[in-house]
Amino acid sequence: MTIRRIAINTGGGDAPGLNAVIRAVVLTALKRGWECLGIRDGFNGLLFPEHYPAGGIIPLGAAQVEGITTLGGTILGTTNRGNPLRYPQRQPDGSTIEVDRGDEVLARLAEAGIDALVMLGGDGSLTIAEALSRRGLRVIGVPKTIDNDLDQTVVTFGFDTAVAFATECIDRLHATAASHSRVLVVEVMGRYAGWIALHAGLAGSADVLLIPELPYDPAVVAAAIAARERAGRHSAIVVVAEGAHPVGGAASVLATEVGRADRLGGAGERVAAEITALTGKETRVVVLGHLLRGGTPTASDRLLSLRFGAAAVRGLAAGHSGVMVALDPPVVRYVPLALVAGRMRMVPLASDSIETARDLGICLGD
Amino acid sequence: MTIRRIAINTGGGDAPGLNAVIRAVVLTALKRGWECLGIRDGFNGLLFPEHYPAGGIIPLGAAQVEGITTLGGTILGTTNRGNPLRYPQRQPDGSTIEVDRGDEVLARLAEAGIDALVMLGGDGSLTIAEALSRRGLRVIGVPKTIDNDLDQTVVTFGFDTAVAFATECIDRLHATAASHSRVLVVEVMGRYAGWIALHAGLAGSADVLLIPELPYDPAVVAAAIAARERAGRHSAIVVVAEGAHPVGGAASVLATEVGRADRLGGAGERVAAEITALTGKETRVVVLGHLLRGGTPTASDRLLSLRFGAAAVRGLAAGHSGVMVALDPPVVRYVPLALVAGRMRMVPLASDSIETARDLGICLGD
Amino acid sequence: MTIRRIAINTGGGDAPGLNAVIRAVVLTALKRGWECLGIRDGFNGLLFPEHYPAGGIIPLGAAQVEGITTLGGTILGTTNRGNPLRYPQRQPDGSTIEVDRGDEVLARLAEAGIDALVMLGGDGSLTIAEALSRRGLRVIGVPKTIDNDLDQTVVTFGFDTAVAFATECIDRLHATAASHSRVLVVEVMGRYAGWIALHAGLAGSADVLLIPELPYDPAVVAAAIAARERAGRHSAIVVVAEGAHPVGGAASVLATEVGRADRLGGAGERVAAEITALTGKETRVVVLGHLLRGGTPTASDRLLSLRFGAAAVRGLAAGHSGVMVALDPPVVRYVPLALVAGRMRMVPLASDSIETARDLGICLGD
Amino acid sequence: MTIRRIAINTGGGDAPGLNAVIRAVVLTALKRGWECLGIRDGFNGLLFPEHYPAGGIIPLGAAQVEGITTLGGTILGTTNRGNPLRYPQRQPDGSTIEVDRGDEVLARLAEAGIDALVMLGGDGSLTIAEALSRRGLRVIGVPKTIDNDLDQTVVTFGFDTAVAFATECIDRLHATAASHSRVLVVEVMGRYAGWIALHAGLAGSADVLLIPELPYDPAVVAAAIAARERAGRHSAIVVVAEGAHPVGGAASVLATEVGRADRLGGAGERVAAEITALTGKETRVVVLGHLLRGGTPTASDRLLSLRFGAAAVRGLAAGHSGVMVALDPPVVRYVPLALVAGRMRMVPLASDSIETARDLGICLGD
Repeated sequence: MTIRRIAINTGGGDAPGLNAVIRAVVLTALKRGWECLGIRDGFNGLLFPEHYPAGGIIPLGAAQVEGITTLGGTILGTTNRGNPLRYPQRQPDGSTIEVDRGDEVLARLAEAGIDALVMLGGDGSLTIAEALSRRGLRVIGVPKTIDNDLDQTVVTFGFDTAVAFATECIDRLHATAASHSRVLVVEVMGRYAGWIALHAGLAGSADVLLIPELPYDPAVVAAAIAARERAGRHSAIVVVAEGAHPVGGAASVLATEVGRADRLGGAGERVAAEITALTGKETRVVVLGHLLRGGTPTASDRLLSLRFGAAAVRGLAAGHSGVMVALDPPVVRYVPLALVAGRMRMVPLASDSIETARDLGICLGD
Repeated sequence: MTIRRIAINTGGGDAPGLNAVIRAVVLTALKRGWECLGIRDGFNGLLFPEHYPAGGIIPLGAAQVEGITTLGGTILGTTNRGNPLRYPQRQPDGSTIEVDRGDEVLARLAEAGIDALVMLGGDGSLTIAEALSRRGLRVIGVPKTIDNDLDQTVVTFGFDTAVAFATECIDRLHATAASHSRVLVVEVMGRYAGWIALHAGLAGSADVLLIPELPYDPAVVAAAIAARERAGRHSAIVVVAEGAHPVGGAASVLATEVGRADRLGGAGERVAAEITALTGKETRVVVLGHLLRGGTPTASDRLLSLRFGAAAVRGLAAGHSGVMVALDPPVVRYVPLALVAGRMRMVPLASDSIETARDLGICLGD
Repeated sequence: MTIRRIAINTGGGDAPGLNAVIRAVVLTALKRGWECLGIRDGFNGLLFPEHYPAGGIIPLGAAQVEGITTLGGTILGTTNRGNPLRYPQRQPDGSTIEVDRGDEVLARLAEAGIDALVMLGGDGSLTIAEALSRRGLRVIGVPKTIDNDLDQTVVTFGFDTAVAFATECIDRLHATAASHSRVLVVEVMGRYAGWIALHAGLAGSADVLLIPELPYDPAVVAAAIAARERAGRHSAIVVVAEGAHPVGGAASVLATEVGRADRLGGAGERVAAEITALTGKETRVVVLGHLLRGGTPTASDRLLSLRFGAAAVRGLAAGHSGVMVALDPPVVRYVPLALVAGRMRMVPLASDSIETARDLGICLGD
Repeated sequence: MTIRRIAINTGGGDAPGLNAVIRAVVLTALKRGWECLGIRDGFNGLLFPEHYPAGGIIPLGAAQVEGITTLGGTILGTTNRGNPLRYPQRQPDGSTIEVDRGDEVLARLAEAGIDALVMLGGDGSLTIAEALSRRGLRVIGVPKTIDNDLDQTVVTFGFDTAVAFATECIDRLHATAASHSRVLVVEVMGRYAGWIALHAGLAGSADVLLIPELPYDPAVVAAAIAARERAGRHSAIVVVAEGAHPVGGAASVLATEVGRADRLGGAGERVAAEITALTGKETRVVVLGHLLRGGTPTASDRLLSLRFGAAAVRGLAAGHSGVMVALDPPVVRYVPLALVAGRMRMVPLASDSIETARDLGICLGD
């Protein structure tokens, strides 16, 4: 089937680089003589055209994508909307059920004369893409997550920007920690995988670095802080992924002391409470959270996004479908969505970066 | 009395520009043929020389200050130590009393042959400086606070850097707020004065801006968010100084809903809880806190710090004492510490910046 | 006369903050119930409507100015167009004469129902504004120049951003100069006034600092470099304003050696050639030029721009005309354009900043 | 042979990340119980100890490398010194001959009890390392060049920082180019390989992109500028690697017009002259040059540098010698220096990035 018209949509959380991918998809499609459309607000622009007086599917030409590479967010509106395969639908009795609107998506795309879809998203969106592909949609995925935890690609766009800003924040905190003789605990994103914490912790010269892949012993962390203290270094920077957690029984030991922090705050609050309880040191917590999602993408993320976007269109032109573009340096290749969906790429404990952290004397809590 | 040897100390919280001031003081003193010393860790290097094997008072020459203008923190160690006029002293029974060690400070300075002291600090340190001056010490203060709330000077060093970074953070959050259709509440420093919130909120295009000088009505804030919503703008950026607080009875109205946030979090958490309670919008809080204290000073803060440091030494050479250097653009002048100590400079409600905020349609909560 | 409709135009070179001023003018005008228009490409949109199919004067509402505070350039197109009072007009014989189209400007503004004009520009634009004011136009000027050399205001918008980036560049060069044992000469903007060089040179820890206000002696510069060399410091950073020039006869001494650089390059090339000729040191020149014009404005420049823009509209509402908004910290006031036009604010040689430079041991070439 | 003491040296031009590599080498060596020394100023500290009162080889411990990850330059002094295998030696008659001091290097290292050498450098240094290895030295290389043109490694440290800053500069120039309706030509480093130009040009949305690997036709470049002009876009950003050059006879066509630029300036000046000659457009040239060498390394460069430094020591511990550490994502491996020395990695014309540039409609001049 010859392609004449494609659409783009974006799903999941915000990530720097979305607009750069969109720009590359649009320009590459135009170059092949294709028409390009953008679906607003996830799949909402497609499913609820009545909510969009100016159109839920908008034409994207060179003018629409000029200068957008540096912009955070997405020109397609919001990313964080419902899964069309399990779309929440309010019932008359006030309860909510999930409805499969996948076939509706296919029908609407067909009505709009759209021959193929480029989906930008993380694990959730790519799983949807895979399902839609199995139902017959010509679709190609572009891996997006600042957490870098998607399988089959060495890196996802948004990750470099998140690491760069987290590192800049850690840089700022070093002098303040020293000036105040304090332990500063920096919590970064990473619920399941510790990539941001690992890279930013290394680049930012963290003293302690805790990631989900490596459950930590609070006593080991405290011992590292105490050893610094004895060596005359009264401050420390502790970088904690939000998914970091203590080894089995350790939490209970500190249950009373850290209970409040644990109940109410995230991993950073808990680690800070443990350190104070075990060492008596004053701690402060800085939660970077949403600061890591936004911002102008780094040059590296822009390049990756542009390559991914152009490769997605080339992939469609070459007949690929049901695949995701992936970086396998120095080349971009296409991997079946079935190999990506529902899988997660954790930091391998035997990796060179983990070994480097140990070589530098960073406490990993184990 | 001819000056031949001076000392510098730093007090209070960390602020970008401390090292630039130190560099300027040292080089300007050297140029006049004076010797320059640095007291480590507030006044501790003076009071507890026994804790400093390498000396609690260290010589500062050109080599020690080379390249330090760009460094955060202070090369004199920690800033945040005891007030020598009310120094905490542990008693045999475990309690703590406060001891006046001011005369000890004077005696130790005299023993070390120090003719004058340059004190870098905020209101606390400058109050100490004023007291020591009344006891006969030749002393000059340099106004340091990222909060910009010192009286008699148009600006303090550290403030521009804090505003610049707060603004950069707000910039990053705009796209994410829009992509997720959320209200993002950004809490910045400013317990008593809203300067950082006001400047960063204006520069960062905040939609709502809450400062301590202007108690806010949660209903007014909620109405502003709701009006945006009706206009099709589903996100908002709310900048809140940590000292912002609701008008009289307003808090009680929302007591139950926001009670938890109010008890446990800061102003940002409370405002977020109020917005959610009154509008149903999803909110997220980002607390910038310590991120605003550190980092490389902006060019503007470096220039101000260098001017202040050089002017402090010139002031001593001209016979000034018991004064603080102050910026009265375009000149630096000397104001009596007695006019500064214990006073605070709030944002004037009739100011041009406040008026600009209103002109731009920013909700100030009143 | 009641104002109901105003227009904005921008003139002269690009400067960070133009869009922030435009946004503030528009929002403040809308708040007063006025209509706001933007003239494209200096005065061209007014004088040559036939070249603008979409209109040479465009309506500016809240939507047009949303999110533009952070953008460099101007949404009104190009800034750098002809002076309407001496507009270049090609003659049939190929020569060009200058035509006064000032009355045409007034007529077109009247036709468009425009009651007042806000002009953003430097000395050239403000001189035009003053002339148009004398012809009866209700006009208010907003001082724009990255060079900071306009009279009657402590600072102009765009200057802080230019200084910040120049300083960042100097920071980057320090380590490279040291690693390569070289003298790096950094030329910054400033044809008549040395403000950027002075501020960035101080903030960036320059070793030599040359400004137009203070003609330099190449032998003095060379002696400073040589003294560093003897002290074991084999590199140096020399910051040069583009208008810096040697004292009277000095140039001739080096005529042969530096002749080539002088003929072909700017002040930076000449200074580098002089240093090499007199000291034998290897030099490299970095010309920052246009890099200082663009970019996202600093928080400080955004704030100033927003204050200026809002104050311009408030000024018009209060009946001011023929004036420029000016910063006289902490207030914004209105000064007659006649006091600004054709005047230039040089760095005063007796200023505190110059004295600070000397105190820090920076060679000023005199 | 068991290793007990190693030395580090740095050669070639400055590159961001040198200090991070040094820190990782030192800490990783200390962890294995090895002693670590630093040779000052390339090999000079070893060959001319008499010039170094404080020692030409200095001990490096944890204190010496604390906090240096973020610093530009190298704590080992200058990088850019003589090749010990062809060391320039002044003769009595004033001429200079080249002397092989390689055996002297080996002897001095042996005298100092140094068991192995870690050499940080580019092609020149790695070629020396290879020769010293053949003479029996235990040596491991770490690939350093901002140009990214070393063979056998996907990336070298310093490159990401250079691209990031070049991109930031291009970002700044876009609005100014548009505001002034000009063509801005940005010359970046890259004498033989166009990696910086390619990556920064893509990330920075260049309109024309010229690299050494792809000789350009000035007429093609001019046609691209003219086509933009016809489409109403009166400005353009042209990114040029310093080694970019026109195809065969093309230069001669424009010989007269561009002759002056060609003789005196670099590739950027020539391209600008060609564009002006062929299109009549006003052009300006910005040469980034040394600005790309310095500065704080990006998070990505820091991580790479730390991984390389730690891997170098692990490699020595594992018995490797005569090899270079190389990135083969996601792993670091060891490749024989003989496969690296004297080879250069050019941008492959069939690469994904080149294809992306074409897909985006960027003119590559061919």
